[in-house]
Amino acid sequence: MLKLNSHPSGRHFLQIPGPSTVPDRILRAMDYPTIDHRGPEFQALGKKVLASIRTIFKTNNPVVIYPSSGTGAWEAAMVNTLSAGDNILMYETGHFASLWKKLADKLALKAELIPGDWRHGVDAAQIEARLKADTQHIIKAVCVVHNETSTGVTSNIAAVRAAIDHAGHPALLLVDTISGLGSADYRHDEWGVDVTISGSQKGLMLPPGLGFNAISAKALEASTHSTLPKAYWGWEEILASNEKGFWPYTPATNLLYGLSEACDMLLEEGLDKVFARHERHGEAARRAVRGWGLEVLCLNQDEYSPVLTAIVMPDDGKGGRHDADAFRKVVLENFNMSLGQGLGKVSGWVFRIGHLGDFNDLTLLGSLAGIEAGLIKAGVPHRAGGVQAAIEYLAGTAGR
Amino acid sequence: MLKLNSHPSGRHFLQIPGPSTVPDRILRAMDYPTIDHRGPEFQALGKKVLASIRTIFKTNNPVVIYPSSGTGAWEAAMVNTLSAGDNILMYETGHFASLWKKLADKLALKAELIPGDWRHGVDAAQIEARLKADTQHIIKAVCVVHNETSTGVTSNIAAVRAAIDHAGHPALLLVDTISGLGSADYRHDEWGVDVTISGSQKGLMLPPGLGFNAISAKALEASTHSTLPKAYWGWEEILASNEKGFWPYTPATNLLYGLSEACDMLLEEGLDKVFARHERHGEAARRAVRGWGLEVLCLNQDEYSPVLTAIVMPDDGKGGRHDADAFRKVVLENFNMSLGQGLGKVSGWVFRIGHLGDFNDLTLLGSLAGIEAGLIKAGVPHRAGGVQAAIEYLAGTAGR
Amino acid sequence: MLKLNSHPSGRHFLQIPGPSTVPDRILRAMDYPTIDHRGPEFQALGKKVLASIRTIFKTNNPVVIYPSSGTGAWEAAMVNTLSAGDNILMYETGHFASLWKKLADKLALKAELIPGDWRHGVDAAQIEARLKADTQHIIKAVCVVHNETSTGVTSNIAAVRAAIDHAGHPALLLVDTISGLGSADYRHDEWGVDVTISGSQKGLMLPPGLGFNAISAKALEASTHSTLPKAYWGWEEILASNEKGFWPYTPATNLLYGLSEACDMLLEEGLDKVFARHERHGEAARRAVRGWGLEVLCLNQDEYSPVLTAIVMPDDGKGGRHDADAFRKVVLENFNMSLGQGLGKVSGWVFRIGHLGDFNDLTLLGSLAGIEAGLIKAGVPHRAGGVQAAIEYLAGTAGR
Amino acid sequence: MLKLNSHPSGRHFLQIPGPSTVPDRILRAMDYPTIDHRGPEFQALGKKVLASIRTIFKTNNPVVIYPSSGTGAWEAAMVNTLSAGDNILMYETGHFASLWKKLADKLALKAELIPGDWRHGVDAAQIEARLKADTQHIIKAVCVVHNETSTGVTSNIAAVRAAIDHAGHPALLLVDTISGLGSADYRHDEWGVDVTISGSQKGLMLPPGLGFNAISAKALEASTHSTLPKAYWGWEEILASNEKGFWPYTPATNLLYGLSEACDMLLEEGLDKVFARHERHGEAARRAVRGWGLEVLCLNQDEYSPVLTAIVMPDDGKGGRHDADAFRKVVLENFNMSLGQGLGKVSGWVFRIGHLGDFNDLTLLGSLAGIEAGLIKAGVPHRAGGVQAAIEYLAGTAGR
Repeated sequence: MLKLNSHPSGRHFLQIPGPSTVPDRILRAMDYPTIDHRGPEFQALGKKVLASIRTIFKTNNPVVIYPSSGTGAWEAAMVNTLSAGDNILMYETGHFASLWKKLADKLALKAELIPGDWRHGVDAAQIEARLKADTQHIIKAVCVVHNETSTGVTSNIAAVRAAIDHAGHPALLLVDTISGLGSADYRHDEWGVDVTISGSQKGLMLPPGLGFNAISAKALEASTHSTLPKAYWGWEEILASNEKGFWPYTPATNLLYGLSEACDMLLEEGLDKVFARHERHGEAARRAVRGWGLEVLCLNQDEYSPVLTAIVMPDDGKGGRHDADAFRKVVLENFNMSLGQGLGKVSGWVFRIGHLGDFNDLTLLGSLAGIEAGLIKAGVPHRAGGVQAAIEYLAGTAGR
Repeated sequence: MLKLNSHPSGRHFLQIPGPSTVPDRILRAMDYPTIDHRGPEFQALGKKVLASIRTIFKTNNPVVIYPSSGTGAWEAAMVNTLSAGDNILMYETGHFASLWKKLADKLALKAELIPGDWRHGVDAAQIEARLKADTQHIIKAVCVVHNETSTGVTSNIAAVRAAIDHAGHPALLLVDTISGLGSADYRHDEWGVDVTISGSQKGLMLPPGLGFNAISAKALEASTHSTLPKAYWGWEEILASNEKGFWPYTPATNLLYGLSEACDMLLEEGLDKVFARHERHGEAARRAVRGWGLEVLCLNQDEYSPVLTAIVMPDDGKGGRHDADAFRKVVLENFNMSLGQGLGKVSGWVFRIGHLGDFNDLTLLGSLAGIEAGLIKAGVPHRAGGVQAAIEYLAGTAGR
Repeated sequence: MLKLNSHPSGRHFLQIPGPSTVPDRILRAMDYPTIDHRGPEFQALGKKVLASIRTIFKTNNPVVIYPSSGTGAWEAAMVNTLSAGDNILMYETGHFASLWKKLADKLALKAELIPGDWRHGVDAAQIEARLKADTQHIIKAVCVVHNETSTGVTSNIAAVRAAIDHAGHPALLLVDTISGLGSADYRHDEWGVDVTISGSQKGLMLPPGLGFNAISAKALEASTHSTLPKAYWGWEEILASNEKGFWPYTPATNLLYGLSEACDMLLEEGLDKVFARHERHGEAARRAVRGWGLEVLCLNQDEYSPVLTAIVMPDDGKGGRHDADAFRKVVLENFNMSLGQGLGKVSGWVFRIGHLGDFNDLTLLGSLAGIEAGLIKAGVPHRAGGVQAAIEYLAGTAGR
Repeated sequence: MLKLNSHPSGRHFLQIPGPSTVPDRILRAMDYPTIDHRGPEFQALGKKVLASIRTIFKTNNPVVIYPSSGTGAWEAAMVNTLSAGDNILMYETGHFASLWKKLADKLALKAELIPGDWRHGVDAAQIEARLKADTQHIIKAVCVVHNETSTGVTSNIAAVRAAIDHAGHPALLLVDTISGLGSADYRHDEWGVDVTISGSQKGLMLPPGLGFNAISAKALEASTHSTLPKAYWGWEEILASNEKGFWPYTPATNLLYGLSEACDMLLEEGLDKVFARHERHGEAARRAVRGWGLEVLCLNQDEYSPVLTAIVMPDDGKGGRHDADAFRKVVLENFNMSLGQGLGKVSGWVFRIGHLGDFNDLTLLGSLAGIEAGLIKAGVPHRAGGVQAAIEYLAGTAGR
């Protein structure tokens, strides 16, 4: 196994905003021997995970599980509901919203991207205005990212739903909550989302390898006359097989073991507690950032992500900013912690800290301490005391 | 974890022709903590598996690895090389060849399926004749299955290559060796295959969840003017990222750990030894079948699969055959062994035994003994002594 | 890890009579992170295993668990109940009974060993006669082996108890069921055993590393005036700590995780079913032996061990017997199976097959097939058909 | 498995001074299937670990490995070298030195314990004076603890050796480095130790279950005329079996897999680096303690333990001290961290933090942050900034 075993002493701090650390309980569940994917034991597993995952998405509608990355689940949502040349409306919340737009382009969709500054979430008012202007209902879908992993900004999906409704527009609502599900509150049915896209490696605490589509009745109906070619991603055949707990092709058995365990863990803790835990850790992280005299990328406090915090590097006094990637390298090499890099437009001057998944106060404090030690070691100007602020906040709010 | 832990005593015999039993060594490798898919440790892993997997495919050309099932890899091969409305030539070796045809239909390809009897491999002469008749070179690709998992018949891919060459036809050659790779001899470069499709859960001894495309220069060239929409499956972006050991989207990290280990295991044993081991086990299985007075589905001894053996149930004296699925149920419930069901046209009167992957003489003999015990228990007419024949064959050929 | 990973393909058949194969479920349980052995989580575990293990021993009295081998548990039983120079009565059922006698000698006990032929169990009549002759009650303890691992003979402990009672003798009854517990019926309380000795690596399906003493009230009373020095093995301090679920020194935490799981597995299956399973496998093994025309070492059919079968090698026609160890080497090198060697007096002409623990029909049949193939390969004269006899017996008795 | 799976979110911080956190790499190694302890594969493993462990003890003499706790290894050292009634000299460095004295009493040795204040290490001058006074050489052994786990004080063993030599006294030197080995520098041969006692669950990073005796030639010679009864612990038979890589009884196979891996990890990192890492973490911990205005139990800066730090609770203003166990409970329940309790004489007013084994800067900082948060939450008076001091020290010394 290459040099995977030659780590420095102690446990690596994987503080990127996904893949998140996979808890031992899930690693062991995945370690169970592979079984016959057409046999009765698998069938019971299949039915169980298909039921549990609905609870996580807060939906009574079907959820399709793909052996794929989240990118695959993006594609699935589109090829099942749209036809070549369809107009869709997207919103530039950050790097991943932009990537999704590129994917739509490759699928021959006509995607219009409302520009954003990467420091705010979706402006529902702009969505509403644009839809109202589309009197002929040429726009077939509105596609937004719930938790933008590149910026640490969480958009208000209920507001987007309301905007579509106020506009009286029939467009489908497609939402990417790849990094939000299982960490930030999300309500597929209540918010009237038509297709919710997610992945396994974030709040679900699994390794990467599973993609999800939660599907409304309206989306299902749309799939019957969408004409983009679809085979692997086609909902119809999968849903038919899923009825009996099976899949039309060999599913990713061992990841499904892990998914079963992940759902059990989230539901044992209780989704509300899970969300509150993430919110509290997000607040602690931001207090540390402010303690250091640094800036959180997200500018709207109603949109702070509970999943990750993107941090702006300080001015270098030469018209630029200190190099985020050089700083991350110092942290990795000296303190055995992986931080998320700045992506796309914010590359080089932003870094991200993930505080999601199987996580707790001391791992967060160790991570923040690693950042403070890294700022010192790398000579990045900052005020001492960020960790101190986080300790005090966590001590003051512990055990509530 | 549901009831996954409540198995009967002892280790389950997973004798379906894939997913094959995942060896402990690979399960433990996969159990390694998930790491940053953009960091230097992952990069080293990425470069290593991308190099190793080429050796397994016997190619110097690139191999693309998808988080997907084998079905996804079928789709990938097609969307990267073909355009809507393209004519392709396929060959009905069995259930999986037929499923692949259905997938082509969904992608709006015009697939012509040369009919087969499900008891022989590809007849290269028919391919040649058909291509010769296609003087205008309307046919863009020939698509065949190397090891047909539904029938236990292995086709001669070199002969198909020769047929195309003899016809002087420019069609691409696409080959599915999902269940053959790592078990049956396969030579992507030598046989002039343009796209080879495979999956993780057979000879590679991994859980399901990875799909593969090995790509010739000609296929790569074709991908630059193919017009089927492609995003997730698109080779271009993946190959560009792979150059540095990365992927454009989050790869299935833990399965890649397993893949690294699997390649090491196969290459440590030596591919020739691996193939010889499978051949010997196939022969032992067939001797058992003949010992029982039963019939092997494959009718051509040059095409016996080293991966699995499909067995025809005996006549029931009422114009039909004994029920293969009732027999399989007896074996599962009494002897804790999963056998492969008959699929498609041979459903109900054929069962399959997988003898692939991480496997050895005594596991084969235990499996065959379970079949013989099952035949007795289920009251299926047969001669005693199939296991005896296999024991004698294996004893006579051991340690060579 | 040395070359532990370079096994030949497939799963090794570990058919020695212990350590038995550790099931995945237990390996994973043991893989749980080590915890604070003085904290509340450990305390709950401690209480649970201390309760569960009593059920396995069929006792309401305390069971002491040592980080030790079974040999340590032998020593513990003696140093807690006896004083230097004490006379004890032992019975030579085989190699392990003889080793236990040697251990007693080292502890300065005066051990008298009633000779045996290694092909029968304890003759209770001889015990009774010897105790009756001891009118002054000089003998302080009777020490016998329940399941003699070197011979595959199980002694009747209830008869030994009756013999002591008939003799009206106050000697303690010490019983070694290291290889019997969890496989052969055993009843500490009902049979009036004073100290039962066992270990983790046989019927309990754990790796080696735990020793057990189940203790009667009479044995406990004896411990208060026994004068052999004792510290590590001393029951008193351990029992006091155990009251609260703790140990006086650091217990073998991860093996205790495994023990908890092992008890759950045995009790879920039900002890009576576990014992019946072992009996059935023993009978199948003996039918195979007879089918080969070979001889079972145990001569008394009422004393056949359900745990293992010791097999006598055939005459070599030169006044000796074929070499059992050469045969075992052939089996190991050609068929990847470990068989038990002949120990002590039967070394060289007896081999043993373990059929205990986490085991099932097909693993037994694979093992027997490996023996038959080995007999062929090694040129050991035998009749064909032993496996056939076992198949027929198992088929005929399956699913009852 | 009871409720072992129902932990709160995130990884538990096991900051007791042993058992230390077992790294994944070792857990996986231990998870390897149990093998035949009399076969060639085991033999290679046995030889390898017996060689590697000598390097860890820095000895060319044999090291005996027991399936036992460290307490068992204490007993082994004594029963192999001493006879009933022998006089021995011990030194009260703390709780474990006192427990060892109790064990000696149980073995009928006449142990004289030089009193200590539990805040200093062994005073070699007192040893020397006492030995000089023993002109008749009645004292057979000097027994001291290298790293006293109850106090965080490390004694100077070379000085004790020199004291014995200066006194010209023939007593054996027995040293307990159960919690020192693999964390603090230790040199069995160079320091002229006769028996070194250790265990698996501290610096060796294994679960508990193995005890060790490193044995000098002089100790070996003593064992030939020592008369304390010994069977399980007897070196002679074990050393004879070890010659070939085997054990006279079933060794703890899976813990030996772990031991092999642990030795590899320590030797790959390099023992000097391992020791320097522990020293640096000890210094960081003490800076935090001083930053809080609290007191380190150890009073001599030359004797600070690199393995753990014992911390004195502050005055409660009522003539007592704040309750250490109440504080530890707050930390466990609110911050998911186990701290070591005060043992024996320091019970209730001292707590201990382990910083040993598979450990790193951020885990230490997370742990220290948990203490600071716990001090706040529990209302224990202290100054803010202990963690800050540790961050600055670690940043200033990182990567050297």
